[in-house]
Amino acid sequence: MKRILTAIISTTALATAAPVLAHGHEAAHEAAADDAQPMEYPELFAAEMELAEEFVHGMMDGGIVVPVPQDPGGGYTHEQHKRNYRAMYLASNLYRVTGEQRFFDYVRDMLLEYADLYPTLGDHPARANQNVGRLFWQVLNDAMWQVHAIQAYEPIRDELSAEDRARIDNDVFRRASEFLSVDSERTFNLIHNHATWATAAVGMTGYVLEDEDLVRRALYGSAGDGETGFIRQTELLFSPDGYYTEGPYYQRFAMLPFMVFAGAIERNDPEIGIFEHRDGILMKALNATIQLTYDGYFFPFNDAIRDKSLNTAELYEGVAIGYSVSQDPALLDIARHQGRTVITPQGLEMSRALDAGLAEPFNFRSMLLTDGPEGDQGAVAVFRSGQGPMHMAMVAKNASQGMGHGHFDKLSWQLYDRGNEIVRDYGAARFLNIEAKDGGRYLPENESWAKQSVAHNALVVNEQSHFYGDRDLADQSWPTQHYFNIEDGFQVSAAGIDNAYPGENVAMTRVLAMVEVEGLSSPLALDVLRAQGEGELQFDLPLHYSGHIMRLGFDPERFTAGRPVLGSDHGYQHIWVDGRATPAADQGFMTWLLGGRFYTYRFVPSGEMEVILGETGASDPNFNLRREPLVIQRVRGSGNATFVSVLESHGLYDGATEQTIGSDSQVASLRHVRSGEHDVVLVETLAGENVAVAISWDDDPEEQHSVTVDGREISWSGYAARIALGQGDN
Amino acid sequence: MKRILTAIISTTALATAAPVLAHGHEAAHEAAADDAQPMEYPELFAAEMELAEEFVHGMMDGGIVVPVPQDPGGGYTHEQHKRNYRAMYLASNLYRVTGEQRFFDYVRDMLLEYADLYPTLGDHPARANQNVGRLFWQVLNDAMWQVHAIQAYEPIRDELSAEDRARIDNDVFRRASEFLSVDSERTFNLIHNHATWATAAVGMTGYVLEDEDLVRRALYGSAGDGETGFIRQTELLFSPDGYYTEGPYYQRFAMLPFMVFAGAIERNDPEIGIFEHRDGILMKALNATIQLTYDGYFFPFNDAIRDKSLNTAELYEGVAIGYSVSQDPALLDIARHQGRTVITPQGLEMSRALDAGLAEPFNFRSMLLTDGPEGDQGAVAVFRSGQGPMHMAMVAKNASQGMGHGHFDKLSWQLYDRGNEIVRDYGAARFLNIEAKDGGRYLPENESWAKQSVAHNALVVNEQSHFYGDRDLADQSWPTQHYFNIEDGFQVSAAGIDNAYPGENVAMTRVLAMVEVEGLSSPLALDVLRAQGEGELQFDLPLHYSGHIMRLGFDPERFTAGRPVLGSDHGYQHIWVDGRATPAADQGFMTWLLGGRFYTYRFVPSGEMEVILGETGASDPNFNLRREPLVIQRVRGSGNATFVSVLESHGLYDGATEQTIGSDSQVASLRHVRSGEHDVVLVETLAGENVAVAISWDDDPEEQHSVTVDGREISWSGYAARIALGQGDN
Repeated sequence: MKRILTAIISTTALATAAPVLAHGHEAAHEAAADDAQPMEYPELFAAEMELAEEFVHGMMDGGIVVPVPQDPGGGYTHEQHKRNYRAMYLASNLYRVTGEQRFFDYVRDMLLEYADLYPTLGDHPARANQNVGRLFWQVLNDAMWQVHAIQAYEPIRDELSAEDRARIDNDVFRRASEFLSVDSERTFNLIHNHATWATAAVGMTGYVLEDEDLVRRALYGSAGDGETGFIRQTELLFSPDGYYTEGPYYQRFAMLPFMVFAGAIERNDPEIGIFEHRDGILMKALNATIQLTYDGYFFPFNDAIRDKSLNTAELYEGVAIGYSVSQDPALLDIARHQGRTVITPQGLEMSRALDAGLAEPFNFRSMLLTDGPEGDQGAVAVFRSGQGPMHMAMVAKNASQGMGHGHFDKLSWQLYDRGNEIVRDYGAARFLNIEAKDGGRYLPENESWAKQSVAHNALVVNEQSHFYGDRDLADQSWPTQHYFNIEDGFQVSAAGIDNAYPGENVAMTRVLAMVEVEGLSSPLALDVLRAQGEGELQFDLPLHYSGHIMRLGFDPERFTAGRPVLGSDHGYQHIWVDGRATPAADQGFMTWLLGGRFYTYRFVPSGEMEVILGETGASDPNFNLRREPLVIQRVRGSGNATFVSVLESHGLYDGATEQTIGSDSQVASLRHVRSGEHDVVLVETLAGENVAVAISWDDDPEEQHSVTVDGREISWSGYAARIALGQGDN
Repeated sequence: MKRILTAIISTTALATAAPVLAHGHEAAHEAAADDAQPMEYPELFAAEMELAEEFVHGMMDGGIVVPVPQDPGGGYTHEQHKRNYRAMYLASNLYRVTGEQRFFDYVRDMLLEYADLYPTLGDHPARANQNVGRLFWQVLNDAMWQVHAIQAYEPIRDELSAEDRARIDNDVFRRASEFLSVDSERTFNLIHNHATWATAAVGMTGYVLEDEDLVRRALYGSAGDGETGFIRQTELLFSPDGYYTEGPYYQRFAMLPFMVFAGAIERNDPEIGIFEHRDGILMKALNATIQLTYDGYFFPFNDAIRDKSLNTAELYEGVAIGYSVSQDPALLDIARHQGRTVITPQGLEMSRALDAGLAEPFNFRSMLLTDGPEGDQGAVAVFRSGQGPMHMAMVAKNASQGMGHGHFDKLSWQLYDRGNEIVRDYGAARFLNIEAKDGGRYLPENESWAKQSVAHNALVVNEQSHFYGDRDLADQSWPTQHYFNIEDGFQVSAAGIDNAYPGENVAMTRVLAMVEVEGLSSPLALDVLRAQGEGELQFDLPLHYSGHIMRLGFDPERFTAGRPVLGSDHGYQHIWVDGRATPAADQGFMTWLLGGRFYTYRFVPSGEMEVILGETGASDPNFNLRREPLVIQRVRGSGNATFVSVLESHGLYDGATEQTIGSDSQVASLRHVRSGEHDVVLVETLAGENVAVAISWDDDPEEQHSVTVDGREISWSGYAARIALGQGDN
């Protein structure tokens, strides 16, 4: 059995191949003696070498410190063991490139320290949950440690003394693999990203130790039947479009073990064809991960930490490995955006291609990513308008629950514009690794607020979250993506779910669209939501926006001397009420200012609609929540409701030049007409342009539909259409 | 009399002088026919030409539109007349450079439209205040219009037909000058920036129309006695250090008419020696304006709009003219930072110098800027640590009231770190030019909140603002700057004021310092405030911070289901109470997170000190206030109080790499010892380093002082000193 975790760079494949990163280090060592040598590294790789050397030198200067595990996430021993695996991983790669003995010694000495420590360990004293680790408070971190440590071990293992090698093999890696795959068998055999890390750790250890059993266990699960294990994970965790059911934040996180282990499989067991498996699912997944971003930041739905962007270690590895597999020039564009890479042979190959000018722009585009192993468990729809950091993007989150980190946010949406998140998703209530905040764990408010439906731009019935906040119930159902179409001036998605409220038998269908209107500087974000249930229901449609209120179309009762709390449970206990109003037909709008741009949210008030202005932060004894504004459209007393809203991006506020342009909405009116089973939304601008969006709710593309509005016939075919009505008599 | 508003560029002075911008345009016109010509513009100037052409072309495409004045600030006619003067000014400069007839025609035709309009005008219908304008709602805007229009007029005037020239001379500029200097005589003769604009407009008109009377009026006031007028303004509006009493926001605004008119004076009446006047006060003022920034943004105290930075039209003009006068290479650095200039001869000269590589770094440094014409009406102290956009800066606002836009913020302070404002000043409650917000005027909350003492990091007695919020009272008093010293590891300012509360006879003295402590990554910001008054007083010391609370040293009563309002007046009505606590001696601290950095505010709780956590936003019916956190130290029941606090910048939170370092304070203890009239503050770090800051409150630098603390003698000379006490036994 071979044992090659990293690729052998074929010197024939690279025109300017430097004599570094040959498989053995001797050549590199000799080469390092040549003063001119470092100049031959490509730019990105050379910069990464410097960063790595700086970090490793810093660690070396501090001496090898392998403390007895004690602290939870963010605490000293936790962070030290993280630093250690990073240092070993980098030092070993530096050894591979430079052949310098001190890097070899450092990795060996640290692993020998771990060989002393590991056999003494039982369960970590600060156990996070039932999946307790040894070096860390949870087994996931142990797996991450091992994924890095085994990669650090490979380049030095052959040259160790037999005694050292045996000690590290047995007292570190065999024990750790036993812990991950046997003692923690429950985690190991999950279809879940924690298991991806665990199988990657154990499988790569198998390759390095030439232990076929470990490899088989990792690839096909403990039972060896392929019902679990790494291969099965690639089949069940991604949709056919490469969407990972937990959402982009965890998709990013999972891409590292997927890509790194797949790279090792490809080199050691090429007959598996891991990168071709399931129609190239891993490369699709890598691309989907990148597509699920705005200005480099991941759409933060589900339990996402909002700081996470393409600039993360996982994606540096993923992009380098992905490029080495696919030679896709668009990945070079991502690497250029990242400005970082990895100092592996793949990182070198990619950096060379970048220096050779092979990059082509990555095409961030409108797309539908289905969810579920078969692609039939909902979807995420992305619309984009324009290019670059100022472009507008709209996201419809019609995906399934996404396991334990999923939120009760069916049919929710987001809007980005000019570099800002305009219609927000809260992400997770968590301060990663900050001890003062429950040791960096998920905070209680993650359950009580962040996961709840009202914390999203999602319909809430009777002040209860979807599936009544019951995850088991949520796991059994998902939205159906009815329609998705991209054409000039009109991008549209329609999805529905009939069992988010089984008790009230509520069926909801939502059309979200990006609609261009003549004379407006940006497309309108249109939202048409129909809900039908049984009995007298209360329907709340929150919008979580960002910005400072400039103008209200309505005149709310204001609570300026004491703000009531909106409710008592399902997230409502966290909302302060700033104001309440019952807008007249022409009063359904509000304008706010963010980042020099104005945004007007306009809606069609039905007869008794109440509008609630609120802010998060109530019932938050430990200051765990961010305080952010929201507005709720509330309809009561019937089993049905239709909400029609548009969000308009307009004007310019430039305090520096004292220029203010278009601070008020350019839309004159928004109307909604129901005709039989059809809905028509009519937008008229101040300049007199009229556009209709007609919805048949019928996805037969051939079917013709027609309604008469204001004595004028509007005809279209298929599910939904944009019809320009030209200049009115405004 | 000459009439040269812009300089004649001496071709001998510029090595690569292109034959553009000769005084007449004929040469330029011929040169423009040479295709290679545009390549000779220096980079910044060429880019500015493009911007100007783009703007002017856009305006030309729209045709000349000179509407009858109607709207207030931000409204259509207001913005159109602003666009018009900008277009005329740029078109005229483009004509000077390119000699193209269409620019000439455009400026002429627009001025002829104004010649039709102007004689028909009376008071503007949307008068802002008693100083109503004609083209605009306030006379200030009329003056700004004229300052630009007269500069636009000069390059075309000679070549007009006699009839056109007479019409524009008489129906526009003589009438407008009559309006500014006679009808609006009250404004014209103020010692105030509005009068600077008015005198600049009238004086430059005098130069162009060769009207000696207008020039004299502008220079020496209506009475011609020099008690008012432009020259007197340079003597009374700036301190000897060049500090403008209204503060940096208005200083920036005033610099344009000061610099532009001074440039014209220098060229027409060089015998005045305007740039040498009062020891070169105008260049000092320009430099002070630049020094009063952090990352390019002006310290926002008084009625400041926070978006204002060095990137404003006023400073493009100021830097170009300033460079042409001083040849100061540091101004080139500022121009480079701005990335903009003006398309005048001065802008060309400066751009050429920039291209020639003559720039040298502008030295942002610690400094004291005295206030008041004689420099004895308080001061602004600035400390800086480090260089570049991440450096730390601390500002002590010990200046005088600063006229009508001044705030009741005596002895307040601010802290900046890593590109963020950590200890904040609210600035003005105003949304410039946004009609929905009271037409862009100052909002009611500017009086009720932004100006009040509790809205600042300033001591508040008995919940009343300094001078009880009475501006007339405030104008009569100012702080005294007792001490200012910069040395390695210790930068310190001390100031006091004895009559901010004449009724309670409160004397307050505040020492603010930047103190380096061995082992800490940033200096500590130290604040020692002593107050002595009569009777049983309540002392509140607010700190307006930015960030999300991570840890509290104390355990507050929390108001999670309904937040009370803190008070009823003087700004207190705008504060929601989040929590109250009475911290024990070791509980006086709180930590927050901002921009990946942790900040711990640590204070010495005196016996009965209450701590109040609050947030702005109460009693704000129109959503005019930003919602921002604050903490108040409150001491009651005595006539005296001493507050000792330090603010510590520490650690790192990087969500992208999941690294968290030093999230808890590195300070083990903060103690305060009073010994006789001396105060000693003792800081001990977790690593055991001890530093004392000793304050004698005696500014005799020779005087020796000594106190004994913990059995150890601490000796120093002068007002205040930092004494490293080395490793303790911690």
